[in-house]
Amino acid sequence: MLLKNDLILRAAKGEKTERVPVWLMRQAGRILPEYRAIRERLSGFKELVTTPQLAAEVTIQPVDILDTDAAIIFSDILVVPEAMGLDYEMLEAKGPIFPKTIKTSADIELLTTKTAIENLAYVFEAIRVTKKELNGRVPLIGFAGAPWTLLAYMVEGSGSKTFSKARKFLYSEQALAHQLLQKITDVTILYLKEQVKSGADMLQLFDSWAGILPPDHYKEFSLKYISQICDAVPEVPLTVFAKGAFFARREMGKLNCRTIGLDWNMEIGESRKLIGDDKTLQGNLDPCVLYTSYEEIRKHTRQMIKEFGTQKYIANLGHGVYPDTDKDKVKCFIEAVKEYSA
Amino acid sequence: MLLKNDLILRAAKGEKTERVPVWLMRQAGRILPEYRAIRERLSGFKELVTTPQLAAEVTIQPVDILDTDAAIIFSDILVVPEAMGLDYEMLEAKGPIFPKTIKTSADIELLTTKTAIENLAYVFEAIRVTKKELNGRVPLIGFAGAPWTLLAYMVEGSGSKTFSKARKFLYSEQALAHQLLQKITDVTILYLKEQVKSGADMLQLFDSWAGILPPDHYKEFSLKYISQICDAVPEVPLTVFAKGAFFARREMGKLNCRTIGLDWNMEIGESRKLIGDDKTLQGNLDPCVLYTSYEEIRKHTRQMIKEFGTQKYIANLGHGVYPDTDKDKVKCFIEAVKEYSA
Repeated sequence: MLLKNDLILRAAKGEKTERVPVWLMRQAGRILPEYRAIRERLSGFKELVTTPQLAAEVTIQPVDILDTDAAIIFSDILVVPEAMGLDYEMLEAKGPIFPKTIKTSADIELLTTKTAIENLAYVFEAIRVTKKELNGRVPLIGFAGAPWTLLAYMVEGSGSKTFSKARKFLYSEQALAHQLLQKITDVTILYLKEQVKSGADMLQLFDSWAGILPPDHYKEFSLKYISQICDAVPEVPLTVFAKGAFFARREMGKLNCRTIGLDWNMEIGESRKLIGDDKTLQGNLDPCVLYTSYEEIRKHTRQMIKEFGTQKYIANLGHGVYPDTDKDKVKCFIEAVKEYSA
Repeated sequence: MLLKNDLILRAAKGEKTERVPVWLMRQAGRILPEYRAIRERLSGFKELVTTPQLAAEVTIQPVDILDTDAAIIFSDILVVPEAMGLDYEMLEAKGPIFPKTIKTSADIELLTTKTAIENLAYVFEAIRVTKKELNGRVPLIGFAGAPWTLLAYMVEGSGSKTFSKARKFLYSEQALAHQLLQKITDVTILYLKEQVKSGADMLQLFDSWAGILPPDHYKEFSLKYISQICDAVPEVPLTVFAKGAFFARREMGKLNCRTIGLDWNMEIGESRKLIGDDKTLQGNLDPCVLYTSYEEIRKHTRQMIKEFGTQKYIANLGHGVYPDTDKDKVKCFIEAVKEYSA
């Protein structure tokens, strides 16, 4: 089906765009009352993730309500460990918990790669339903967690300020860590390819806990596997967003992907220099700017576009939108991008 | 009194040292059974902080047990907001909580600068007792939180993954933020000067939440005040440790202080280039290395010293030692520094 708005795909491919495309991480859900209305009827977050019709509905809400230039499939990075056999629970205020964690070689051997993709059928169905209902309005972004970030949760068992158990694992159990990362990588490659077959127009890898590793560990235990994924999934433009990995920007510029996401700590000009002119950049407004006045939001958005320029650029925040953000402020940001970059 | 071991002071001043001095952040407490034995007898953390004889005792423990080249006074960065009139509680697993937070100009006006220093008399007494009992064995480090980090707690009311309330305050209430930061800075300058008068041989500023700010905000709301403190406290060598502020290393090189602390995300060679040859550097072993084998600890320590060199350098971890670290592993790190740098 022909896309009516393919701005973000052209920006990702490095083609000329008449204005800067814009979307938000975590735009599907969190900030919209329309999302919360659906969410409240359900038993929990996971029911929403695993019910394709509902996942599709909340995926499309931000396109309808906020007028974003892309939809991102409503899901979670932790569906992959779950599909490999490591169940998680999503606790309301506390975040994800894994009742069992990975400690030994036997734990890793128990993880399935073979049936993992079948277990993720509900994601592919959600993508198909979404594509149908989007009817070509905007591209649909698929995604996965980067292998290191998934290992971090699978070993730590929950979110953490330090992820010290997961980081200890990298030092103490190097061979096991590589074995686990390779297994996650293999599944992730199949998972992303299947997302594309199901209709995803574009992909993003989230390395949410990149910033907690020392640079040498990041290269050894994260970038290596991200690089494998980039090489193996050439079908659609891929974005790598490694939060906090300021120290790896030069190396990220050499990845076989199209777009690099920046967080709000990364200076724009310096990042462009380190990453190089070939890549498209995405980001990186501080999500807290959306707490300020309409005037301030417009001012900061304009300044950001001035620094990034209007080509090879996808506007976004430097992280997911915070849950208590006023949706009218989000709209203001999106409109400001469209206005100032045209 | 003449110091028997003044290695760390000479390293900080850029003078020649026969080997690299070493100490740990959070060395006073946390990892030592001898500390926990004292702690268990008391009503809570704050009783320990506010009782000079006990604070002195746990300050000296790591010198006795671990053979560090410096003691750091046992205290907390949050004693300053408390002394200004904003009480905090230290909850066992949750960390600090401020029942009241700063929201308005009136809240800031209520904070005292005049009596703040009197309210901190127990810290100065703890320093005097410690100095007497140390009897010149090693230098004593005094410290304070950087103004931005204190504001972050005072506005947020607790620790936080995003400190989004505190960061919102910087965007929405710029004038109030500056008013509060100046007030904290004024008290901090008096506080550090009084620590020196009481016997502190050296000082460190902890900017624990530096890494959560965008670079322009960091310069405006944090470095500006750190710079004032550096200029106002020339009596003893001062170290600035701004965790996560990789983007400000060049500017930190221009501060009127002697030492810059690096976290484990910051590459050593690059940091030296950005900060310049004049400053002494401190850091930056990943605290997780101390979870590994004695052999691995020695290997990583040796590599670190090779990268830093043995002059204008103070060995440390890249953050506070994690509470579940084996004290024999800490000892191994300390001995490895002494052995490899001699």
